[in-house]
Amino acid sequence: MTDAGLRLIAAALAVGLGAIGPGVGIGIVFSGALTAMGRNPEAEGTLRTYMILGFALTESLFIFALVVSLLIAFQII
Amino acid sequence: MTDAGLRLIAAALAVGLGAIGPGVGIGIVFSGALTAMGRNPEAEGTLRTYMILGFALTESLFIFALVVSLLIAFQII
Amino acid sequence: MTDAGLRLIAAALAVGLGAIGPGVGIGIVFSGALTAMGRNPEAEGTLRTYMILGFALTESLFIFALVVSLLIAFQII
Amino acid sequence: MTDAGLRLIAAALAVGLGAIGPGVGIGIVFSGALTAMGRNPEAEGTLRTYMILGFALTESLFIFALVVSLLIAFQII
Amino acid sequence: MTDAGLRLIAAALAVGLGAIGPGVGIGIVFSGALTAMGRNPEAEGTLRTYMILGFALTESLFIFALVVSLLIAFQII
Repeated sequence: MTDAGLRLIAAALAVGLGAIGPGVGIGIVFSGALTAMGRNPEAEGTLRTYMILGFALTESLFIFALVVSLLIAFQII
Repeated sequence: MTDAGLRLIAAALAVGLGAIGPGVGIGIVFSGALTAMGRNPEAEGTLRTYMILGFALTESLFIFALVVSLLIAFQII
Repeated sequence: MTDAGLRLIAAALAVGLGAIGPGVGIGIVFSGALTAMGRNPEAEGTLRTYMILGFALTESLFIFALVVSLLIAFQII
Repeated sequence: MTDAGLRLIAAALAVGLGAIGPGVGIGIVFSGALTAMGRNPEAEGTLRTYMILGFALTESLFIFALVVSLLIAFQII
Repeated sequence: MTDAGLRLIAAALAVGLGAIGPGVGIGIVFSGALTAMGRNPEAEGTLRTYMILGFALTESLFIFALVVSLLIAFQII
């Protein structure tokens, strides 16, 4: 067991654990938007804007974890 | 215990942990769409569009984790 | 402790962790469909279509994890 | 610590982790069915069909994890 | 650290992890039944039947994990 092996474990943990929260969160964002559209279809335009905003802000957490994972994997840190 | 063994553990952790969040999230997206369709069947076309969009964006997190897992498994990183 | 032992651990982690998310997600999909059918039994045909679609797309995440687990178990990677 | 010991750990992890997701998921399926039956008792026959279908498809994920666990435990892989 | 120690850890992991999912799931089943009975007390007989069915099927996942744990603990595998 050398540091090269631990580097692979670290890259896997960063991307794997980092996907748990945003994966659930993005699903909840879209579920809320779909429920609201079914109840009030006329508000589709407004709901779409905030749905995309909610998706982007939730996704950003995963992007940070992915960047850390790739920094580890390609030996930049 | 060599680095080759740790590589297998890392590949398993990346794909296993990466499936937790999107697995729950995709279920929540479809559940929200089904609830909205039951309440308002006339909005099926609009809801289907956003349902597929929500599925694709949630799935993308798993795809990143799967790519990292395969990069590790086939010794690219 | 050799790599052959770590290989078994990796196969178990891939299939075990990979079942967590889709296991919860598939339950949520069917729960949403059952709730919507109870509220609006006339929409059963439409709801069934999307229920099966949601099941298949959520199940696909587990299939990827199972494939990685079997690739590890039968020494392909 | 030999590979025989790691084999026991792997069998335990596969069946233990594999029960988390379907355990929660099956509960959610039955909860959705019970809520729908309470709201609309006339739809009991339809709901029962999809309830059993949802149970079986969620259970299948646990069965895969159990099979992998038994394959490991009885030294087939 | 010998294999006898790992055997104890494995038995604990199997029963401990295996109780997480069904523990939550059975709670969700009874919660759904109680909510439905509160809304519609006349349906108590029907709901009780499916509540017990849901409990038994969710419990079965824990039983499998318990059996694997006992197989490990009593040195059968």
